[in-house]
Amino acid sequence: MRLEGSYLLLDCGEGAQRQLSRYGLRVLKISHVFVTHLHGDHYFGLPGLITSMALYGRTEPLVIVGPPALESIIQVLITESDSVLPYELQYVQTQTESIKTVVETEQFKVVSVPLKHRVPCTGFLVQEKGPELKLNVDACVKYKVPVEQYDAIKLGADYHSQSQGLIPNNLLTSPAYKNRTYAYITDTIYDPEYLVPILQDADLLYHEATFLHERADRAAETFHSTALQAAQIAQASDVKRLMIGHFSARYNDAQSLIEEAQSVFLNTVEAVEGNCYNI
Amino acid sequence: MRLEGSYLLLDCGEGAQRQLSRYGLRVLKISHVFVTHLHGDHYFGLPGLITSMALYGRTEPLVIVGPPALESIIQVLITESDSVLPYELQYVQTQTESIKTVVETEQFKVVSVPLKHRVPCTGFLVQEKGPELKLNVDACVKYKVPVEQYDAIKLGADYHSQSQGLIPNNLLTSPAYKNRTYAYITDTIYDPEYLVPILQDADLLYHEATFLHERADRAAETFHSTALQAAQIAQASDVKRLMIGHFSARYNDAQSLIEEAQSVFLNTVEAVEGNCYNI
Repeated sequence: MRLEGSYLLLDCGEGAQRQLSRYGLRVLKISHVFVTHLHGDHYFGLPGLITSMALYGRTEPLVIVGPPALESIIQVLITESDSVLPYELQYVQTQTESIKTVVETEQFKVVSVPLKHRVPCTGFLVQEKGPELKLNVDACVKYKVPVEQYDAIKLGADYHSQSQGLIPNNLLTSPAYKNRTYAYITDTIYDPEYLVPILQDADLLYHEATFLHERADRAAETFHSTALQAAQIAQASDVKRLMIGHFSARYNDAQSLIEEAQSVFLNTVEAVEGNCYNI
Repeated sequence: MRLEGSYLLLDCGEGAQRQLSRYGLRVLKISHVFVTHLHGDHYFGLPGLITSMALYGRTEPLVIVGPPALESIIQVLITESDSVLPYELQYVQTQTESIKTVVETEQFKVVSVPLKHRVPCTGFLVQEKGPELKLNVDACVKYKVPVEQYDAIKLGADYHSQSQGLIPNNLLTSPAYKNRTYAYITDTIYDPEYLVPILQDADLLYHEATFLHERADRAAETFHSTALQAAQIAQASDVKRLMIGHFSARYNDAQSLIEEAQSVFLNTVEAVEGNCYNI
């Protein structure tokens, strides 16, 4: 996920570094890696990614967010390889009792959301922290607003000019984008009472959809969801768009899963490896 | 390596399972995995391979040969994923004090050979245990040799027939292949005094060749070998053929490394991913 110049990686299955490179994404640009849970398809590519970053000469710290056991696993692998990384790994633990802010910068905030799966697991909400108002720089220049006033104006202040009198804020700004939210929800059983309030109004919801609804029993047994259930969550949460993925290998293509989800929530897209989705 | 119906995997870097599948090799057929040392490029694909074998419903035990710490690493990953494998993992530890027989079946024997690298590391010799003589089944049928005599005849016995008299062994057998040896030597510093007697007469020697000889200093520093050194080992050991690989990413193609090795040992080939080499 590219966000205000930061590159966030959400889960890192085996071969992730090879796929990143295939799609022209430079692994050294990644600042944060988020791991939902310790099933191999979600993190077996992380040790190799960390090692490659060292080979490529990384010096910037890398933030790794995940379940508590992840740190000891990674550290054992590094110790046994008798390696010293040329950069720092900064671990942040998710927890499964309640929602937790795991990363906060000036540009964005990420919270972990406990999910019900067979092992401790969290989803992540990535929330943009953009300014509420967008500065109209041309207008500010025209009205000779001093640069040191810009921050106050972005927060809604008017400008009091000795020569021009009061310049109201709406002449100096335009409405900004709403701060966008991406919700990454995998792996989880269908859990609407809990999830719907948390996901309310998200701009893009990725929700796992391991099975078609005809296998709802199997989904519940394995703590996964169906395409229909993912769409019901999206509809009840009033999200703008739904992306589904994590399909069982039993399905040769995603068409039937997409159609099932679209029967409930029309604005559903398939998560296709290598595609780029704008929020 | 396919040997008398057994499939042996020597080292298992990240993405190995994907490459096996790409080349039409069924991972369930693998009976033994051998890990030389705990640098990621030699085993980061093993956890995923083990997990996939479980998904594919393996029930046959899998033998994993490697450094002692490998078992605890794999077991932690399995424990944290809250998985129970439907098949047994049988661990065999290599050791770095002396040569050790790590696997022995009726068809072959594998010994681990301590190597000098930055971390505990062993190579492997895979030695065929074929019969010294090859049974000529047509001749045995013609002379009406009872099947229960076949084992004795393969070991050189003549057949005493009441009706036909003595049938000498050379009518019932043909000379067999010499028991072939494959030596897999990676990663190691150049170490001829130690390695040459061990590798004597091997049919195929894989020897790492990380650098060109112009970087012999760097090779020694990092406990690796040059292409020239690999060839010197091959020549002094009187092996039949040398295969080199494990080239540094600094070399865009292997041509210069192959030429350097061939200047000392002509029968040198490049280890090319996806190629098949007969011994």
